[in-house]
Amino acid sequence: MAVPPGVSESDFAAALDEFRAAVGAEWVFTSDEDVALYRDAYSPFWGEPEERVASAAVAPSTVEQVQAVVRAANARRIPLYPISTGRNLAYGGSAPVYSGSVVLDLKRMNRVIEVNEANAYALVEPGVSYFDLYNYIEERGLDVWIDPPDPGWGSVIGNALDGGGGWTAYPFRDHFGAHCGMEVVLGDGEVVRTGMGAVPNSKTWQENKWGYGPWVDGLFRQSNMGVVTKMGFWLMPRPEAYISGTVQVFNERDIIPLMETLNLLENQHVVNGSTQLGAGFGNDGAAWTLQVPIYGPEKVVRAQLEYAREKFAAIEGSRFVEEDPIRTPLSDEDRARVRLVNFGIPNLSTFAMLGRSPMQPNPPGGHIGFSPIIPRNGEELLKFRDFYRTNLAEVTGGENLGIVGPVFMTNWERSLVGLIMFPISKNASENRKIRAAFERWVELAAEQGWAEYRAPAVFQDTVAETYSFNDHALRRLRERIKDAIDPNGIISAGRYGVWPKHLRKDA
Amino acid sequence: MAVPPGVSESDFAAALDEFRAAVGAEWVFTSDEDVALYRDAYSPFWGEPEERVASAAVAPSTVEQVQAVVRAANARRIPLYPISTGRNLAYGGSAPVYSGSVVLDLKRMNRVIEVNEANAYALVEPGVSYFDLYNYIEERGLDVWIDPPDPGWGSVIGNALDGGGGWTAYPFRDHFGAHCGMEVVLGDGEVVRTGMGAVPNSKTWQENKWGYGPWVDGLFRQSNMGVVTKMGFWLMPRPEAYISGTVQVFNERDIIPLMETLNLLENQHVVNGSTQLGAGFGNDGAAWTLQVPIYGPEKVVRAQLEYAREKFAAIEGSRFVEEDPIRTPLSDEDRARVRLVNFGIPNLSTFAMLGRSPMQPNPPGGHIGFSPIIPRNGEELLKFRDFYRTNLAEVTGGENLGIVGPVFMTNWERSLVGLIMFPISKNASENRKIRAAFERWVELAAEQGWAEYRAPAVFQDTVAETYSFNDHALRRLRERIKDAIDPNGIISAGRYGVWPKHLRKDA
Repeated sequence: MAVPPGVSESDFAAALDEFRAAVGAEWVFTSDEDVALYRDAYSPFWGEPEERVASAAVAPSTVEQVQAVVRAANARRIPLYPISTGRNLAYGGSAPVYSGSVVLDLKRMNRVIEVNEANAYALVEPGVSYFDLYNYIEERGLDVWIDPPDPGWGSVIGNALDGGGGWTAYPFRDHFGAHCGMEVVLGDGEVVRTGMGAVPNSKTWQENKWGYGPWVDGLFRQSNMGVVTKMGFWLMPRPEAYISGTVQVFNERDIIPLMETLNLLENQHVVNGSTQLGAGFGNDGAAWTLQVPIYGPEKVVRAQLEYAREKFAAIEGSRFVEEDPIRTPLSDEDRARVRLVNFGIPNLSTFAMLGRSPMQPNPPGGHIGFSPIIPRNGEELLKFRDFYRTNLAEVTGGENLGIVGPVFMTNWERSLVGLIMFPISKNASENRKIRAAFERWVELAAEQGWAEYRAPAVFQDTVAETYSFNDHALRRLRERIKDAIDPNGIISAGRYGVWPKHLRKDA
Repeated sequence: MAVPPGVSESDFAAALDEFRAAVGAEWVFTSDEDVALYRDAYSPFWGEPEERVASAAVAPSTVEQVQAVVRAANARRIPLYPISTGRNLAYGGSAPVYSGSVVLDLKRMNRVIEVNEANAYALVEPGVSYFDLYNYIEERGLDVWIDPPDPGWGSVIGNALDGGGGWTAYPFRDHFGAHCGMEVVLGDGEVVRTGMGAVPNSKTWQENKWGYGPWVDGLFRQSNMGVVTKMGFWLMPRPEAYISGTVQVFNERDIIPLMETLNLLENQHVVNGSTQLGAGFGNDGAAWTLQVPIYGPEKVVRAQLEYAREKFAAIEGSRFVEEDPIRTPLSDEDRARVRLVNFGIPNLSTFAMLGRSPMQPNPPGGHIGFSPIIPRNGEELLKFRDFYRTNLAEVTGGENLGIVGPVFMTNWERSLVGLIMFPISKNASENRKIRAAFERWVELAAEQGWAEYRAPAVFQDTVAETYSFNDHALRRLRERIKDAIDPNGIISAGRYGVWPKHLRKDA
């Protein structure tokens, strides 16, 4: 049996006994076979000594059990790595950032505590997947939508905490931004409720986001400051209709007015759907195509699309193709032809697209994404594309490593993501090249002022290095907070580049 | 000359010398006359020993000067109280929460660093008022709106940090929510940039809100965790038109479907303006009136209002009055008749309404507000109104203290504020009664699960007491963070109920 680094075998055995006492022996996993289930199938270090692996796992079913486990771990300085459902594949999955951590698996905490239809919100536990929440709503016939990301098996809480996003309307598809209120277990086992949740018998925990005084919720995003055990989300009342148009422009540099027009439309929320930009898409010679979906009452979305069409028409030579509105709830016919996530319906089709399925949990290969944030304007977009082209040969040593990019994601507010995809395999020598290329992109992009908004577990330190203003003042601030609220550094050591005191490079 | 509590006269004199060296002698204020300018004209303790007063003030003009002042204060444990423009009257104004603090007056830091029209954002310093930012934009003919609160002389940053709001469209009127990126000087003088600002040469500091890793910005809201020296804000592209309708309902309990319909319209952002609810408003016998303003392209707002009208028509007996759209930029005629803040134009008319003016900075009386958050549904609204009526006599001892309420504010997302206004005078015995009444309302409301989202400086502890879940776990978390990032507790001691270690009740 593996033992966490720096922990004696007897302390670890004692802690495991305490975990068993807290959650029941059947929910503490220590066999190699069980622990292997927590491996990250897309690890860029698969099978190498540097692969991040767990020592054990424990699966509580209530917040009191989480507290008991955290207290036992804290007393013996056992590193824990909380996961919700562990489905954030390509970002570490259910494997810890710090090898030897005990995975704190929250999938059994899968209660939908409330869905309020009249004010369109939900309160859930971390084990609730998008499927679970969707089914709960459907079974009760509630007239609200959720906003699922591509694969629907992930955790609603986990995705939000990881900074994930979906595909329906603004502002709901920014999952962290759409949350309202948290319950968190800190490193000493204390339970905190944020926002209005700190008021006993509060009636507005999911109705008022900011509460009173300093807002601490942000600390738990992409972080290791605590174990989130409940979280509220604002939902979208089912929109009457969805309409979409596609604008095509035919000159490379038309991207400049295209982005300017998109900014105008999105910044005033006339276009509220998740737009998609394609380069040279289709066979009709367009240099750029942009799809602009809109959600709302049918007469409103028609007017919005008409306005969008007029604005795009100012781009000389552009073409605009308007689709018929799709009414909700979807007819069976529509359901069979649309992209379901755009209609708040979770599914797993993205895996079919990538050649894998839930039946094949340990696929031969996957992808990881390099996700730099770049300004949302056409000049910068072209600059990034040229940067990619110019540096590709250097980054890959002239080899074809199967790197694909950049795809410009226009679905976040106000900025672009210049996504570059890297294949990940079970072949160590291939993975070594990919890792070197990934790290080189991080460096090269940072020199230009571009940095990533997320990173696979094994590159979280590399990316954190680029957020270095004033000798890493932001990291040092986070470290001070980390030391104050988790002084033994037991929770998710190293996550997003924040290490507890005893594991820092300078320690 | 007053000296901060716990500081020796010689240490204070030495610190003042260091402040003078940092900012120039003319920007350090110690005479009684100068320091009196920082008094809170609306203090509920006006002229009493408990009035919160400053010992001195210092006004730096650059972030380097702020750092120098903070370092000097930190070395000698001089309490500082940063203000932006100090105009948050009724919430403490420019007076410190902790008597004897040195006011760190940032009004000289009044640079508009950038207004980006293409992506509609601004980056400003704390001394920039709504007037300043408006003028900057107007002078350059930029096609973006700001969102001013009632009086336009306040600081854009200060208002956001205080959790203030304005009157234009969602989401811009939630001033803290609409910010993107900060620069903060911590208690040891270190400068931190948040979000993408932590990337050297970042191009997206005002374009991507969340950045990478734990989001610390929330810590600086209604708080004392640092001195914010720069802050970005997302602006609204000038909307083509404004349209407004007013729905009237004639039965008391029609408030229930009225709020349900409003939720539906607002939660899907069909109504995006700052709605206003009136009770028994007008002479036509309506029990409730609700004004629903909408901003956007003219054809879109017409469709939105039509949809809203249809939805409200489902309330039996309701009446809907539709106004003509108002086009922007405003004609002189329109400008003379509209409420300017609804059109992004800062002004001071609210003071004329309250019988005072900038010419009369020390008015005979003012108001303070009691601002409990209540759920946005009609049943709860009626319950709160009955609660007010039932308890008024007890709270006031049967006297007419001039308390007015409740006004139900519908301009925040998802929840209501049941605002109660209290007159404040320069008469100690009147103020004593008002204080007792205010504190009693806080207590009574908390018993029902209602708590305030803001409080006048002298009641910040009282309100903080009501956020007591799990033996004040949220406060204890904030205290641990405060101790970690401002260990000498020099910044804004006591603000929003967070005290540094040496000043806590249990110290």
